[in-house]
Amino acid sequence: MTQRLDRFTNSAFYRGRPAWVEALWTLASILAVASRLPGSGPRIAILRAFGARIGKGVVIKPGVRVKFPWRLVVGDHSWIGEDAWIDNLATVEIGAHVCVSQGAYLCTGSHDWSRNSFDLITAPIALEQGCWLGAMTRVAPGVTVGSCAVLTIGSTAVSDLPPGMICSGTPAVPTRPRPKATTAD
Amino acid sequence: MTQRLDRFTNSAFYRGRPAWVEALWTLASILAVASRLPGSGPRIAILRAFGARIGKGVVIKPGVRVKFPWRLVVGDHSWIGEDAWIDNLATVEIGAHVCVSQGAYLCTGSHDWSRNSFDLITAPIALEQGCWLGAMTRVAPGVTVGSCAVLTIGSTAVSDLPPGMICSGTPAVPTRPRPKATTAD
Amino acid sequence: MTQRLDRFTNSAFYRGRPAWVEALWTLASILAVASRLPGSGPRIAILRAFGARIGKGVVIKPGVRVKFPWRLVVGDHSWIGEDAWIDNLATVEIGAHVCVSQGAYLCTGSHDWSRNSFDLITAPIALEQGCWLGAMTRVAPGVTVGSCAVLTIGSTAVSDLPPGMICSGTPAVPTRPRPKATTAD
Repeated sequence: MTQRLDRFTNSAFYRGRPAWVEALWTLASILAVASRLPGSGPRIAILRAFGARIGKGVVIKPGVRVKFPWRLVVGDHSWIGEDAWIDNLATVEIGAHVCVSQGAYLCTGSHDWSRNSFDLITAPIALEQGCWLGAMTRVAPGVTVGSCAVLTIGSTAVSDLPPGMICSGTPAVPTRPRPKATTAD
Repeated sequence: MTQRLDRFTNSAFYRGRPAWVEALWTLASILAVASRLPGSGPRIAILRAFGARIGKGVVIKPGVRVKFPWRLVVGDHSWIGEDAWIDNLATVEIGAHVCVSQGAYLCTGSHDWSRNSFDLITAPIALEQGCWLGAMTRVAPGVTVGSCAVLTIGSTAVSDLPPGMICSGTPAVPTRPRPKATTAD
Repeated sequence: MTQRLDRFTNSAFYRGRPAWVEALWTLASILAVASRLPGSGPRIAILRAFGARIGKGVVIKPGVRVKFPWRLVVGDHSWIGEDAWIDNLATVEIGAHVCVSQGAYLCTGSHDWSRNSFDLITAPIALEQGCWLGAMTRVAPGVTVGSCAVLTIGSTAVSDLPPGMICSGTPAVPTRPRPKATTAD
């Protein structure tokens, strides 16, 4: 059979931190970062304490879920919206001035179809400078969202999105160039 | 660059209530309206106390999230399903006999592409009498869902949906007329 | 009018258990099964206590929501991912070696378009052996997902998915055959 989950093992997967650190993070996530309480500053401080590299001027809203803070990089002046879920078994690298809207889901884990043991495959996600993930969007493992690209509300990126393009659909395809801002710089 | 989030300001955005009222509402939402506890009546009473206009015979299920109750209008005999998320920075006006199914998300906030300061743009949503948003659907800012229209499970409305049509997809397009009810009236 | 929610009644719907059992289950769900606490074993024990038939080697992750445990069947070595939502007003039957990924939503309830009283219609869902529902997928009432079929991330199945096919989109269509595992058996 194609899929024999009893043969699955993720013993080769390196979680990056000892179990007690992960347990502590799970607790901090439940009580603070992923909670409904307001406040971006404390969220950032806690994520950094667990190894996240987060730039200046970043905003992190309530309900944000991060799997492994030690595999999260966020550039200056980026926003992570309410209830965004960063499921980063592999590194998620978010550039500067990126907007991750509410309810977005970033998936870095998949499974190997070529083996019936359904081996875990992880692949990083990169959100390049100035891109915008709309509300309730989904991004598949290994995807790079190009600089200033836009993924519209409810869409799903399963392959790289070209820079500066507006992309829509499940799976998302580029539909038109993003209009340039008419303001200076 | 197209998107300079450090230049963003939403100082021009009028939240409609003083900060202490909003804080109180956040608390009421966490403890009651958006909680998992059963009971429609108390939810409606609390929403009304914060300025929502809600008709008679309305049902509001557990886990429902409302951003600003003072920008919510719900007509008679309408239903708001479990975990629906009404993110109403602008007014959401729901007509009579409307069914908003579980997990639906109504988005009223976007950003101005023409300015690199990424200014907040809000636009109201109207759900006309007798329409039906299926489970896990999404509705974009400014959209009107026509009377008796249906948005099918998992679909995303980014433009107006014509009355009486079944609409599917991300983005949703009308696919066929909704069959008329064969019962009287 | 097409939809008169004031005429709705679900008095004909049989919930399968007395109200006090359902209330007890709601409590157990909030406090344990659907909570963020880790631990698959206790979740399975509780679900079984409320009538679920669950095979051996099954894994159930945090945040999983089940409407009626007494209408849930899960085969050996299957996985139910984080925050999956099994909204089983009708029976959901999950075969062996099935992977239901995080955030998947299984919907068994709809409404009768031919009557303006919007009568509740329920229809079972079957996930056949070795199939895989990707993250944030949706499955509509009455759908059978064929053996070893795959529904890709963010997609919505509104009709049966053929065995062994990879299916994508909202609504999902088969796009190509799933590659056979090259490992033995």
